[in-house]
Amino acid sequence: MLTVLGRNSERIGRDNLSAVLREVHRHGAVSRSGLAERTGLYRQTIRSLVGQLAERGLVDEDGAPTVGARGRPSLVVRPRTDTVRVLALDVEVDSLGAAVVSLGGTVLRSVRVARPRDVAAPAATIDALADAAAAVLRAGPPDGQRVVGIGVAVVGVVRRDDGLVRLAPNLGWTDVPLAALVATRLGLDVPVVVGNEADLGGMAEHLRGAAAGARHVLYVSGEVGIGGGLIVDGRPLDGHRGYAGEIGHLAVNPDGRRCGCGATGCWETEVGEAALVRRAGIADEGAGESAVGRVLEAADAGDARAIQAIADVGRWTGIGLASLVNVLNPEVIVLGGLLARLHPRIAEVVDDQLRRRATTALLEGLTVRPARFGADAPLLGAAELALEPVLADPGSLPVIPLAVATVAPAASRTA
Amino acid sequence: MLTVLGRNSERIGRDNLSAVLREVHRHGAVSRSGLAERTGLYRQTIRSLVGQLAERGLVDEDGAPTVGARGRPSLVVRPRTDTVRVLALDVEVDSLGAAVVSLGGTVLRSVRVARPRDVAAPAATIDALADAAAAVLRAGPPDGQRVVGIGVAVVGVVRRDDGLVRLAPNLGWTDVPLAALVATRLGLDVPVVVGNEADLGGMAEHLRGAAAGARHVLYVSGEVGIGGGLIVDGRPLDGHRGYAGEIGHLAVNPDGRRCGCGATGCWETEVGEAALVRRAGIADEGAGESAVGRVLEAADAGDARAIQAIADVGRWTGIGLASLVNVLNPEVIVLGGLLARLHPRIAEVVDDQLRRRATTALLEGLTVRPARFGADAPLLGAAELALEPVLADPGSLPVIPLAVATVAPAASRTA
Repeated sequence: MLTVLGRNSERIGRDNLSAVLREVHRHGAVSRSGLAERTGLYRQTIRSLVGQLAERGLVDEDGAPTVGARGRPSLVVRPRTDTVRVLALDVEVDSLGAAVVSLGGTVLRSVRVARPRDVAAPAATIDALADAAAAVLRAGPPDGQRVVGIGVAVVGVVRRDDGLVRLAPNLGWTDVPLAALVATRLGLDVPVVVGNEADLGGMAEHLRGAAAGARHVLYVSGEVGIGGGLIVDGRPLDGHRGYAGEIGHLAVNPDGRRCGCGATGCWETEVGEAALVRRAGIADEGAGESAVGRVLEAADAGDARAIQAIADVGRWTGIGLASLVNVLNPEVIVLGGLLARLHPRIAEVVDDQLRRRATTALLEGLTVRPARFGADAPLLGAAELALEPVLADPGSLPVIPLAVATVAPAASRTA
Repeated sequence: MLTVLGRNSERIGRDNLSAVLREVHRHGAVSRSGLAERTGLYRQTIRSLVGQLAERGLVDEDGAPTVGARGRPSLVVRPRTDTVRVLALDVEVDSLGAAVVSLGGTVLRSVRVARPRDVAAPAATIDALADAAAAVLRAGPPDGQRVVGIGVAVVGVVRRDDGLVRLAPNLGWTDVPLAALVATRLGLDVPVVVGNEADLGGMAEHLRGAAAGARHVLYVSGEVGIGGGLIVDGRPLDGHRGYAGEIGHLAVNPDGRRCGCGATGCWETEVGEAALVRRAGIADEGAGESAVGRVLEAADAGDARAIQAIADVGRWTGIGLASLVNVLNPEVIVLGGLLARLHPRIAEVVDDQLRRRATTALLEGLTVRPARFGADAPLLGAAELALEPVLADPGSLPVIPLAVATVAPAASRTA
């Protein structure tokens, strides 16, 4: 067969460099021969690419060579955590999170603070977010370290292009320019990118969490509202304008209760925190996590109404999941937030609804499991968002002068 | 920036040849400069690739050069319809279809015959399908023509690997080895591939129909049941095992009517043909298209119950679509089958439900339109399935001896 090499070769170079860094970033430690296998690139190409990444302070290699699949020694490549860093922020209904994260997804410092629900104006939230950011950045980035970007997760419908929060009913926000507000308030002169917290939570769980290695993933984040992060064939399902995954607004009970979005009978009116607390007969629906805690305690004490409330939430969780299974045929469903907390109590009834309502063939090979990263999944996903420009084009970073780039030989490790 | 060309160059050659043939196949007539633009390949590479395709009888070039974007003459490349051909088959509840289709999606011969609903055993359907195939193949492929594959669309859940129909409740089939049955019965000694009719209809509408050019598409095929063909970021959403798109089994009314799948309140219990006929008070729900015709006639004659039945189906159509919009954020929704037929009558109520129930941001840039190819969409998609091996690896076809490959110069055309 004839061989034609006509595609733009600069782009190929960039894509190959990116592919290698992504593998190292995702897996933490990969041998050169493993990189060759995973990327389909020749070993000599891998050597050259790893060299380029090392020159930029992005990876280093173990001094002690390990033995590759074909018996040849193969150095282990690891992401460096002391150079490129990002600031990750997370705006949830009840809390704010901040973290400094390096390549490899290593969390260097993090903090989570309570957010009062009665604060609707964005300004107070931005102030609190800046305080949290200052706490994790306090020491200041040492020489040779770069905060290359800021990623923000938020419980709302986000326009990715400019980080405008179109709608966040559970924060009381409409058209809040979150990226611009954070950029101005923090003044770090690096790009600020904003994403929906469920999308980002799903990204984190897919990358290194409960859905690592799966190609079709449904991440369900449940707290006050229900959000979804969808991974299709290994990539996030963004949809036409980037708003896909508003699974909390599946119409599961069209003549049911009024939803915060204005419609009736959305899934989150039957499954969210308010539904649980309401069903359990706890008066103060707005009390948040503490009210949920009271329902769980009551159930543990044998309170029939609390037990039934949990079962009902489980039943409706299963109804919505069955619909999504029929549409998306996922391999792994990851339950986050409230649903992760309820998982041990509702797993059976969820499973029962899935068996009743999902087409049998679509249940084959399906696993439902709680999130690995819990409440931090969106924060970790926000870090990924901020790291994306580096991962996509590592060659755009400057080569570091030799004195900084040289790494002392690592202590010998067993493979 | 350093340039690295380390990727397997044979694969690049194959992918480039495939990319060029796909463009010509999809668009029918593309100038060489247009091909260079669409594929990102250099012009001299395009020339070489087009030459390789022409040698294999896959494309020819217009004798009269047109003027390209930069003022240079650019030959127009077209798919040849006289060499590579496939047999497309379609098993619907009420009809069977067969067609011979060439590169470029040109239907050379086609036939559609009624299928009696009371025939549950697959054998009789296979016999009728073989008769339909014989009718379109009657003349026999002339010299130099190749029937390279058979594609079959069917209203059921299909395991792509081996063409097993896992479940087709509206045919009364469970675990029917359709690919094997067709291969044995037709004896053509070419591969037989089977796909779900809604997936294939969606593929056809996306390739050249009502959703051409869109990257996020929801195709809804409604007849007895409701099927879905989903396109995400330009590619079919297959899901973990290839079963995605069972949108007829969204739970829209969980305490509602029993569905053929065993669950209750699935979307197709409120939207399918039976729901329309039942609501209109027509006794014989199983009568199929003729019963639908009677409902439409009654509505045209002012029958209040028929008018209300159509409105109710429209409302439930909108409820289900709103859910899917919230999950998938499509750019185009294509309504096929019964829903295409009802579209002029229900467009307004569907739109009203979308505005009430879909999150505002997700309605931006959304279009709902009827299918272009009507009942033939699945048949055209089946042809695409059968053509796929040629499109993926055109270089695997033999070079045709010169006497056959030479094409008389085309009459000059205006660009």
